[in-house]
Amino acid sequence: MLSKSNIKFIKSLGQKKYRAETHFFLAEGNKLVNDLIPCFDCELLIATATWLADHSSAHAGERIQVTQEDIDKASLLKNPQQVIGVFRQANHTLHPHQLTGKLSLALDGIQDPGNLGTIIRLADWFGIENIICSPDTVDIYNPKTVQASMGAIGHVQVHYTPLPDLIRSLAIDNNVPIYGAFLEGENIYHQSLSNRGLIVMGNEGNGISQDIRHLVSRKLYIPNYPEDRKTSESLNVALATAIICAEFRRTKNLSSVSGSPLVSIKSN
Amino acid sequence: MLSKSNIKFIKSLGQKKYRAETHFFLAEGNKLVNDLIPCFDCELLIATATWLADHSSAHAGERIQVTQEDIDKASLLKNPQQVIGVFRQANHTLHPHQLTGKLSLALDGIQDPGNLGTIIRLADWFGIENIICSPDTVDIYNPKTVQASMGAIGHVQVHYTPLPDLIRSLAIDNNVPIYGAFLEGENIYHQSLSNRGLIVMGNEGNGISQDIRHLVSRKLYIPNYPEDRKTSESLNVALATAIICAEFRRTKNLSSVSGSPLVSIKSN
Repeated sequence: MLSKSNIKFIKSLGQKKYRAETHFFLAEGNKLVNDLIPCFDCELLIATATWLADHSSAHAGERIQVTQEDIDKASLLKNPQQVIGVFRQANHTLHPHQLTGKLSLALDGIQDPGNLGTIIRLADWFGIENIICSPDTVDIYNPKTVQASMGAIGHVQVHYTPLPDLIRSLAIDNNVPIYGAFLEGENIYHQSLSNRGLIVMGNEGNGISQDIRHLVSRKLYIPNYPEDRKTSESLNVALATAIICAEFRRTKNLSSVSGSPLVSIKSN
Repeated sequence: MLSKSNIKFIKSLGQKKYRAETHFFLAEGNKLVNDLIPCFDCELLIATATWLADHSSAHAGERIQVTQEDIDKASLLKNPQQVIGVFRQANHTLHPHQLTGKLSLALDGIQDPGNLGTIIRLADWFGIENIICSPDTVDIYNPKTVQASMGAIGHVQVHYTPLPDLIRSLAIDNNVPIYGAFLEGENIYHQSLSNRGLIVMGNEGNGISQDIRHLVSRKLYIPNYPEDRKTSESLNVALATAIICAEFRRTKNLSSVSGSPLVSIKSN
């Protein structure tokens, strides 16, 4: 039996305000909960008897056995699953020098929780260990972000900090190339892409904000096809991030296989 | 003033059943409505006085002037806009021979309306004129799909038909290469990609269905990075589609620029 106060507590974690106060977040469903248990402190598992029996070793501060009807009442999902987990948020510290030797992503005001979640999942796929979000980017612990990340929030460190100072520090003090996606940028396939750099992706509607634009020294554009054809004005930001990250990794793999600089291939 | 029956009518178009009965669909918001007016018959515009005055030439069967409060009542969006449009669904006919000389997408059971919408937007970006969906793929006229497509549903023809017969016809009768995304496929960057072919993308959870798998002669895999690293098990299907389509178009542009077959570049 799930108490009203527990239902209220679960529901409250759908709101950023309560997540910020408690430092907890929600994850629902067997696969996601199992993926997150090794990565975050699990405070509470609310699950059916079957699930709890099947996962007797799943470590949690508290385990509450309930009926499916109880889960249906507490769940934030359209199709509630057998288990709801309450986890403690990670407490990553950002050290800019950690970013100097590798490829990282900066998200400047991404608003859609699904976009953020799929970008985190994408970053995990492509071995990008750090995502730096502007403070106005949607909360990583938004339940829709957690669900869309498919467990990748356990593998990728996501930080929130004002981007201009960080970018200046990386570019000026550490000579890190700053890439960014721009509709008025240059064809990504004609540029040399380093696997040591920061890729800035902008807000869904407005792109990269004014106070950051001039800090991006390498403006990337994904050409449409055929290039002289009128199309929708832009790609979804998660899809553009996917194409850009794949291209960085493709060219890195190519150059490590061929031993030759990428430019010689691109100039064909 | 918006009548109760009009509000009920608008709300009903959130459901596939009523869309199928009436052959209408909804689009909301200034940009989307303006983008769709040249592409579909607009039956009804429900808008504020300001919007109607600013768009006096916007052609529609009927124009109803309402208050913002009325729109808020009828809207399916969390953040209602100034205008709701009711459009007549397109009636595309699929002729398989139209698909033989170009690149097309087949979607096998995509369930998420947002994924379908962003894939349509992506197809438009990359000049893919036709998307063929299995009958169990989510409805293109789902309001979330329409919103996510950002107007691209006016430029890309989306067809629903059983895929096995179509794929057999293309592959056997017309010698069209059938590509598909598989976790157990071969590295996409080691394969020759034709701009005359069909790319099959599978369901979010289960991938490409059993009755189609054996019809895919060229199984593509997007390598993660580094390749020996454990990651999330897969990419979101819309992101995977984006990376694959971008790679088809990149190599096409490369070969048309260099005049040399792609293979010579890939074999580096």
